[in-house]
Amino acid sequence: MNVKNYFSQNITSALKHAPPGAWMPVVPDGCVRLSSGFPDASLVPVNQIQQAVTRMLNEEQGLPLHYIGSPKIDQLQTWLRNRMYERNIHINPEELLVTSGACQAIDLIARILIDEDTFIIVESPTYMEALEIFQNYTDQILTVPVDQDGMQTDQLEALLATRKEEDQPLPKVLYTIPTFQNPTGTTLSSERRKHLLELAETFNFLIMEDGAYGELHFDQPVNSLKSMDQSGRVFYIGSLSKVVAPGMRVGWVAANKEWIETLFCFKKDLDHPFAQSTMATFLENVDWPAHLSNLQSLYQSKCSTLLNALSEHMPANVTWTQPKGGYFVWLTIPGADTATLLEKATDAGVSYIPGKYFYLQQEDGLEQLRLSFSAAGEEEIVEGVRRLAGVIG
Amino acid sequence: MNVKNYFSQNITSALKHAPPGAWMPVVPDGCVRLSSGFPDASLVPVNQIQQAVTRMLNEEQGLPLHYIGSPKIDQLQTWLRNRMYERNIHINPEELLVTSGACQAIDLIARILIDEDTFIIVESPTYMEALEIFQNYTDQILTVPVDQDGMQTDQLEALLATRKEEDQPLPKVLYTIPTFQNPTGTTLSSERRKHLLELAETFNFLIMEDGAYGELHFDQPVNSLKSMDQSGRVFYIGSLSKVVAPGMRVGWVAANKEWIETLFCFKKDLDHPFAQSTMATFLENVDWPAHLSNLQSLYQSKCSTLLNALSEHMPANVTWTQPKGGYFVWLTIPGADTATLLEKATDAGVSYIPGKYFYLQQEDGLEQLRLSFSAAGEEEIVEGVRRLAGVIG
Repeated sequence: MNVKNYFSQNITSALKHAPPGAWMPVVPDGCVRLSSGFPDASLVPVNQIQQAVTRMLNEEQGLPLHYIGSPKIDQLQTWLRNRMYERNIHINPEELLVTSGACQAIDLIARILIDEDTFIIVESPTYMEALEIFQNYTDQILTVPVDQDGMQTDQLEALLATRKEEDQPLPKVLYTIPTFQNPTGTTLSSERRKHLLELAETFNFLIMEDGAYGELHFDQPVNSLKSMDQSGRVFYIGSLSKVVAPGMRVGWVAANKEWIETLFCFKKDLDHPFAQSTMATFLENVDWPAHLSNLQSLYQSKCSTLLNALSEHMPANVTWTQPKGGYFVWLTIPGADTATLLEKATDAGVSYIPGKYFYLQQEDGLEQLRLSFSAAGEEEIVEGVRRLAGVIG
Repeated sequence: MNVKNYFSQNITSALKHAPPGAWMPVVPDGCVRLSSGFPDASLVPVNQIQQAVTRMLNEEQGLPLHYIGSPKIDQLQTWLRNRMYERNIHINPEELLVTSGACQAIDLIARILIDEDTFIIVESPTYMEALEIFQNYTDQILTVPVDQDGMQTDQLEALLATRKEEDQPLPKVLYTIPTFQNPTGTTLSSERRKHLLELAETFNFLIMEDGAYGELHFDQPVNSLKSMDQSGRVFYIGSLSKVVAPGMRVGWVAANKEWIETLFCFKKDLDHPFAQSTMATFLENVDWPAHLSNLQSLYQSKCSTLLNALSEHMPANVTWTQPKGGYFVWLTIPGADTATLLEKATDAGVSYIPGKYFYLQQEDGLEQLRLSFSAAGEEEIVEGVRRLAGVIG
């Protein structure tokens, strides 16, 4: 029996790309983990979540363990809408869908929009899991480079204009992480945001805005694309992974009602009542402004520590981005092969993620690497940079 | 902007069928809920799960709240394999995928197998959520009727032979709940199990075996199709929803390695570490044989109560199935329209699920209804049957 004969035609792209199992290098013990895009362990509210579960099950008994979950799940939706409102995204209840993390949101949106022959656009570099999810649906992926001000919308315009002129298929949807991008830490400038939304109108594409890092700003908050969206072209994807705990898998989509209804068809039997109920109970008792402000100042401090250590230790030809929020700094080492360099780095006791993993064409990322300041402690960060400089220099 | 213009071709079937929002009638307060396919509230281990979370977070701090989750997730996989081994399903670690409930398992398998033009077979009647998931993928759904010994495999054979003779497309996959079926409570006889597996060879189709109720036998355990599968045609779908708690969303697929690897491509970013870690920690400390035996005897007792009450109160022309396990009894009321009758029933203080929801052609289920003995207490069950008899009689 040949298994391959039975596969759906719709997963042809996935079968071509998907690796059988994990493909990221394992980080040896004892390394300073500048690779980890995890929240700082001290900022994950372990005790409060523990208390939330205890309180919830005391008060509600088995309810949160049933299919429907706690009545507090409704409060979670209200809470999320209130957070969005504060960020100038005004939506009705029927314009929100809670998902199992941002990844399920990306997967569901891809599912309702993308066929094997659908063209899509991603930033280059971009979030590796999103790229992986898109490759499950289509091979027709176009890229637009990112610089210190985010996606280069003039290049996007040129790409679209050329395709139109040459009568090539235009992309249906563009995926972007405009604020404190993963992996570069850069933020799309306000001029480019306007330009991007104009291009979406002109060339008739939709936008998936991944806002996972948006609340983690060090200075001023940044206006989301969704808050500027006049015509309902933007799907805003939110996540509590970076600001509460990733293992709880609470994310959401904000979009026009018709989109949400369709996403719901595919989501409805894939809910996760216990985690959502727990999150709702946790949030009910948290002082969110204080919680968030604590995260912001701690990550800002760690980011400064990383940037200072880089200034102090890195060879003169190495350059890096200057994030104004989020988790990441993006390094360029001219002439390097960061994938090969990784073994030396982990031997020296520091890990990072080689740039290639964030590129559709992996060879484009040879000279680059992602450093995360989120998980390691401040002293560790300094030591990690010193070790990394040692293997680069 | 017309939203419909943007939808993927692959969701044509879903858009045709999927209802925007919930479609099941809401059960008024005060009703005896013979509609609910939930576990008995007293059998959901609320305190033990509460303790598991407390212990887990004390011991492991933030680990279960991170992307990767507790190291105990590996133990969960071993635990599930051991449970399967006891039921004569011998699988290696790479032949198991833990999913977010049986529904995600069904959805993932559908995703790798089913195109818009793929023919599939389901039992008639069948599990409504499975039907809904399949309709998200294809319209080409064939049905085979169920009698007191489960799916009528002679009718399946006739259907397949006719299609072959007439050169019509043959189905690629058959979905069955062979043991204590939802909704009928019936079990596929051992002769029919053999016949079904022979037909799968002859007509070259795959089998999705939904084993959600398999462990809840009142007398002898029933051999699963998977335990008899010689050629790797059977996907076994398991679930802890009926035997621990549905809100935890822990299910799994057991199948050959190549299938599991492909399912994993679509699953990998959709994991749920907190719930899985909690389940693993709970199971570590539970006396499973005692737990299961307690469930079995309680559900057996409730089933007897329901059957006795039916014998005592139902009019002579009403018939029902005699389940040997699971949650459900299936009633036939000649000449009735159980969908219309429901309002009278809930007015009288009892709820059930009208038969039509379990049928591809809803009109086939007019005379039938599903009663669940799982959620209501024994006295409630008797009272519920009395009320139901009052509106039928």
